[in-house]
Amino acid sequence: MADAAVDTVASVPVAVIGAGPAGLMLAHLLGRAGVETIVVDTRTRREIETTQRAGILEADAARDLVETGVSDRILRDGCEHEGVELRFGGRPHHIDFKQLVGASVWLYPQTDVFIDLADALDRDGGAVHFGVKDTEVLGVTTDAPRVRYTAPDGSRHEIRARYVVGADGSRSMCRDLVPEDRRVRYGKEYPFAWFGILAEAPMSAPELVYAHSEHGFALISQRTETVQRMYFQCSPEESVDAWPDNRIWETLQARVAGQDGFRLKEGPVLEKTVLRFRSFVQEPMRWGSMTLAGDAAHTVPPTGARGLNLALHDVKVLADVLLKALGGAGEAALDEYQPRALQRVWRAQNFSYWMTQLLHTAPGSTPFDLRRQLGELDNVVGTRAGRTYLAEQYTGWPTRPH
Amino acid sequence: MADAAVDTVASVPVAVIGAGPAGLMLAHLLGRAGVETIVVDTRTRREIETTQRAGILEADAARDLVETGVSDRILRDGCEHEGVELRFGGRPHHIDFKQLVGASVWLYPQTDVFIDLADALDRDGGAVHFGVKDTEVLGVTTDAPRVRYTAPDGSRHEIRARYVVGADGSRSMCRDLVPEDRRVRYGKEYPFAWFGILAEAPMSAPELVYAHSEHGFALISQRTETVQRMYFQCSPEESVDAWPDNRIWETLQARVAGQDGFRLKEGPVLEKTVLRFRSFVQEPMRWGSMTLAGDAAHTVPPTGARGLNLALHDVKVLADVLLKALGGAGEAALDEYQPRALQRVWRAQNFSYWMTQLLHTAPGSTPFDLRRQLGELDNVVGTRAGRTYLAEQYTGWPTRPH
Repeated sequence: MADAAVDTVASVPVAVIGAGPAGLMLAHLLGRAGVETIVVDTRTRREIETTQRAGILEADAARDLVETGVSDRILRDGCEHEGVELRFGGRPHHIDFKQLVGASVWLYPQTDVFIDLADALDRDGGAVHFGVKDTEVLGVTTDAPRVRYTAPDGSRHEIRARYVVGADGSRSMCRDLVPEDRRVRYGKEYPFAWFGILAEAPMSAPELVYAHSEHGFALISQRTETVQRMYFQCSPEESVDAWPDNRIWETLQARVAGQDGFRLKEGPVLEKTVLRFRSFVQEPMRWGSMTLAGDAAHTVPPTGARGLNLALHDVKVLADVLLKALGGAGEAALDEYQPRALQRVWRAQNFSYWMTQLLHTAPGSTPFDLRRQLGELDNVVGTRAGRTYLAEQYTGWPTRPH
Repeated sequence: MADAAVDTVASVPVAVIGAGPAGLMLAHLLGRAGVETIVVDTRTRREIETTQRAGILEADAARDLVETGVSDRILRDGCEHEGVELRFGGRPHHIDFKQLVGASVWLYPQTDVFIDLADALDRDGGAVHFGVKDTEVLGVTTDAPRVRYTAPDGSRHEIRARYVVGADGSRSMCRDLVPEDRRVRYGKEYPFAWFGILAEAPMSAPELVYAHSEHGFALISQRTETVQRMYFQCSPEESVDAWPDNRIWETLQARVAGQDGFRLKEGPVLEKTVLRFRSFVQEPMRWGSMTLAGDAAHTVPPTGARGLNLALHDVKVLADVLLKALGGAGEAALDEYQPRALQRVWRAQNFSYWMTQLLHTAPGSTPFDLRRQLGELDNVVGTRAGRTYLAEQYTGWPTRPH
């Protein structure tokens, strides 16, 4: 295309498509190392800030937010969880991460991670353009890729970069730039979804509660002292309109009921959504000058709380690789990215699948399936080996010694 | 029925249906405590001796054979294995049981366990009748159950007992005595079977090799210095006639091939069988005066080497419970049996299912399934938590401190 087609042209070493936590953290890490980026996203800042997403950060990821200077708000507003509870057979079973693997996780919503990152980039003079349209990524197989987009005011812009990063989420258009005959897409659909609510109520439990019941799975999590996030397994075809508050609470209470008399603290439901999910990986994670990071390259069921953490792990590796490439090693340095990122991707894929299978009731499941699940849960919580196996995967194979 | 229908009547505290390892070990344990039993089996002694079955004994079970005086032959002819090898992605990965959980297993074929037990009962004057016909078990809901059978010479016999034990294997007729409306049968069929061979060849590996490959599963095990036992995943409909030796070896070699150049040592195939398997549990494990033990109550896929060990665990608990019942506690003592046996049954059901899913290629499995399996295998062998999780279950949750 002719330059006449655009109003401005900017040149930066790295252009980033997608201003979710992956794209912004990458821009932040590169910016700290003196590498300029421009990030574009089709969503508005407000839109991203108000979409409820994941809520659990690995300790390593929490530390990175603080230590790389994004913000230390997580230490004040977040909440360190040293374990989770698995409920089944009507009984609570605590998995003590701290004691088992010396690690913990942080309850800190993805939207807050986003807010912190967007603020940090504002503070540090990072270029992030929200609410853009007609994004085009060109020339990814050359050493001069370009990104074109229309700003909210209708003006047309071009970014000339050495590298492009597709961090544009689970509906990524960047990943489509890898030709069909050169990519593999691995996927699995699940016959259930999550009905997620945000409720104005006190906390029902100090840590996350993963509940297995013959009625199906439920997850009790927290947001603040007065607002809680809960989920229950539903059909992917479920409509939120069929669910008045009392039906929601009845369903949730039935799934966590037990001999210990545990009851959820109820309150007005502020928001309800049906969250479908799937397992997905696209390989390769790099194509010419373009790399894919986070949900653009892989998505997981939410059961194991891996999605956000995996995205942050990707960009940590990717920042390192891009700095090497820009520091003189050239494009060959990008060869490192996929092998370094992918081992964790597949481990996390398996963990998310396993947690999902362990806790959900599949339509058409037999009495054998249910009893076997209970046998598995009994072995997981009833042996130190089982608890450690779960704890290590849930806390994300922490990299620092513990 | 009238006594006129039988030629002899014998009275013992416990009658045992089935002279496999479960039935004979129970008779042995009760005999040591001075409780007389009569064991009957429709198979001949020779028939049981020459049927190839499982080959791995938990350390606890091996010790019980020696310490309860069955035989110490396992210490001379058996072979202690301190771990197993998992092969995948063309590479070997060692799981060191001894180092991980302080336990080991013994390679010692089930037929040898049977021979030792049958010899011990002969030595100690135990009553075991092989090759009987027309076995009937009567009055199990009374306190005077009876067993009737026809001896190989055509004579008709009756055993009057206080308790009856159904240890009559995976085609148990005893379990059918629990009325349909009072029992639950849990089951799962698998879309694959094992093609098992006995080959005259030197050992290919010092320990069992569980091989995952895109062609399907294979298991390399040993019998003696000169005779080996191997298996490969096949269709349940497979016919042994379609498999000349060279096709068998080609298939096995392809499934264990790898970057390390590992090759099986070949030799004449002495025996070939297609082994179908399933997961199965019947509850309750007790009905009136009758209890069920071993395969009569539950069967597992052979992948986790749990079947024989689970049967021996059942009868260890059952001997204890029957001695209490006969020692004055009465039939109420039998209430303990199922709760004490069943936790291990369901843990073992899950472990056998998990090992099967981990290593086999299901018909119709997708590239995602294969990659996820490899992610799981990588997490199992690549982390201490994963190796310990497998080791503890494979060695049977050993009861002695380690």
